[in-house]
Amino acid sequence: MKVDPVTLLMRGREVLAEQPFSRLLGAELRRLEPGGICELELPLRTELLQQHGFAHGGVVSYLADNALTYAGGAAAGFAVVTSEFKINYVRPAIGERLIARAEAVSVGKSQIVCRCDVFVRSGADEKLCAVAQGTIARVGVD
Amino acid sequence: MKVDPVTLLMRGREVLAEQPFSRLLGAELRRLEPGGICELELPLRTELLQQHGFAHGGVVSYLADNALTYAGGAAAGFAVVTSEFKINYVRPAIGERLIARAEAVSVGKSQIVCRCDVFVRSGADEKLCAVAQGTIARVGVD
Amino acid sequence: MKVDPVTLLMRGREVLAEQPFSRLLGAELRRLEPGGICELELPLRTELLQQHGFAHGGVVSYLADNALTYAGGAAAGFAVVTSEFKINYVRPAIGERLIARAEAVSVGKSQIVCRCDVFVRSGADEKLCAVAQGTIARVGVD
Amino acid sequence: MKVDPVTLLMRGREVLAEQPFSRLLGAELRRLEPGGICELELPLRTELLQQHGFAHGGVVSYLADNALTYAGGAAAGFAVVTSEFKINYVRPAIGERLIARAEAVSVGKSQIVCRCDVFVRSGADEKLCAVAQGTIARVGVD
Repeated sequence: MKVDPVTLLMRGREVLAEQPFSRLLGAELRRLEPGGICELELPLRTELLQQHGFAHGGVVSYLADNALTYAGGAAAGFAVVTSEFKINYVRPAIGERLIARAEAVSVGKSQIVCRCDVFVRSGADEKLCAVAQGTIARVGVD
Repeated sequence: MKVDPVTLLMRGREVLAEQPFSRLLGAELRRLEPGGICELELPLRTELLQQHGFAHGGVVSYLADNALTYAGGAAAGFAVVTSEFKINYVRPAIGERLIARAEAVSVGKSQIVCRCDVFVRSGADEKLCAVAQGTIARVGVD
Repeated sequence: MKVDPVTLLMRGREVLAEQPFSRLLGAELRRLEPGGICELELPLRTELLQQHGFAHGGVVSYLADNALTYAGGAAAGFAVVTSEFKINYVRPAIGERLIARAEAVSVGKSQIVCRCDVFVRSGADEKLCAVAQGTIARVGVD
Repeated sequence: MKVDPVTLLMRGREVLAEQPFSRLLGAELRRLEPGGICELELPLRTELLQQHGFAHGGVVSYLADNALTYAGGAAAGFAVVTSEFKINYVRPAIGERLIARAEAVSVGKSQIVCRCDVFVRSGADEKLCAVAQGTIARVGVD
């Protein structure tokens, strides 16, 4: 199924709007490209932090997980779910906004392997706060 | 630092109450033992789902991440953060409640390796929906 | 396909003997059960060490990877490959023999999620040196 | 500790020559740079294969693991070990030579997070066969 980029981004935003948890958190889909590129952002607010004032690890992993899924789905052209992923937190996420950038690195018949970098933006400054890698699978593979 | 089990569970619940994101989601710390055992539960509600009515992957990974951290912190006796973890989603999480059970499998001087099983409860039925493994590190190790 | 345990272990040993790399390293299949249980051993010798006299990480990860695959294959009843895995090294592997014990924790239609503990034996003493978790997939899924 | 690139590569090759397992497999260190860049190659021969004629997964994971460690060590400037890593196999490794290219993506005080791509070369053709991500830790951190 060939999809033009504008339709893909619109469809991606519709799916995000259909996810109650993504609405609760406030994620914004900024970029989605057929080759398997995704950029997902999340404005930080007090409710998304842990006890030391950083974004909670679960918020960072939510964003990485969702960006991996979008990148895999965009590359796949079929309905997908995240099968598994791994994340390394490399710096406390202190700032106004998280930005997850994911890309498909290998596209198979029923699985796509993707990587994701999560940055935290504070003013004009952007710093890497987590890196992830995971498998996105065709719905129904298991 | 030796901590008695009752104090540990009370202190653990205080920390959870200090995490705005854990309050937003509604996580409940059921069990926390000095040997590195943790049980963390999360009642599911519409806001925590994705578009097909399952618990969002980010909710499942939040619970696994947090349970891993608690298990590691309980085993360590010092302040910890999750350094990295990996999660495999094995079944759609459909039910009323998620239960994450984590335990420390190796305790080092500044790092603890933990595993976690996440179950979804539906009535009297409990099913495995994800398995995780990760590293919990002493705060300030990096 | 239902296989009796004796046939399964024999078939497993034949497959191991057909792997030139497993012969080079000297792995021994000790146990293989239809439910998805595997025990794989490796006598250590100088050629399998790194520069400090421990078993090389690559040797430990080989054994974990192969044990995961066997456990998954035994649970699956179809031909499998390791799709991905994650390993935490928790202690230098110093001793005479490595023992990897793996088990299937979730069996799907085309994927099995397995866990593995790797121990090092020194005399009568056995210590955990690594823990792993991974996905075993039906051959041809990707 | 500041090291010039030529000395670093020479020292890296000495370490590789001191690893009996790396000698057994025949790994060659092609590139090692202070910023945390490593290229490690392995000519394939029958002994390194599995039963279907591909490089054994354990060979691919050995190379990824070792390349991650070198990249981390080069970035760190202190003695390191691989603490943990995750690998996705994305294509059967059929060819004459494996090439692992690793880089440090985040350098901390006692831990470095690295990524690695493993390619298989067949004639003039080079294909991605695995991707990995892991944590390299200062020796003695645990």
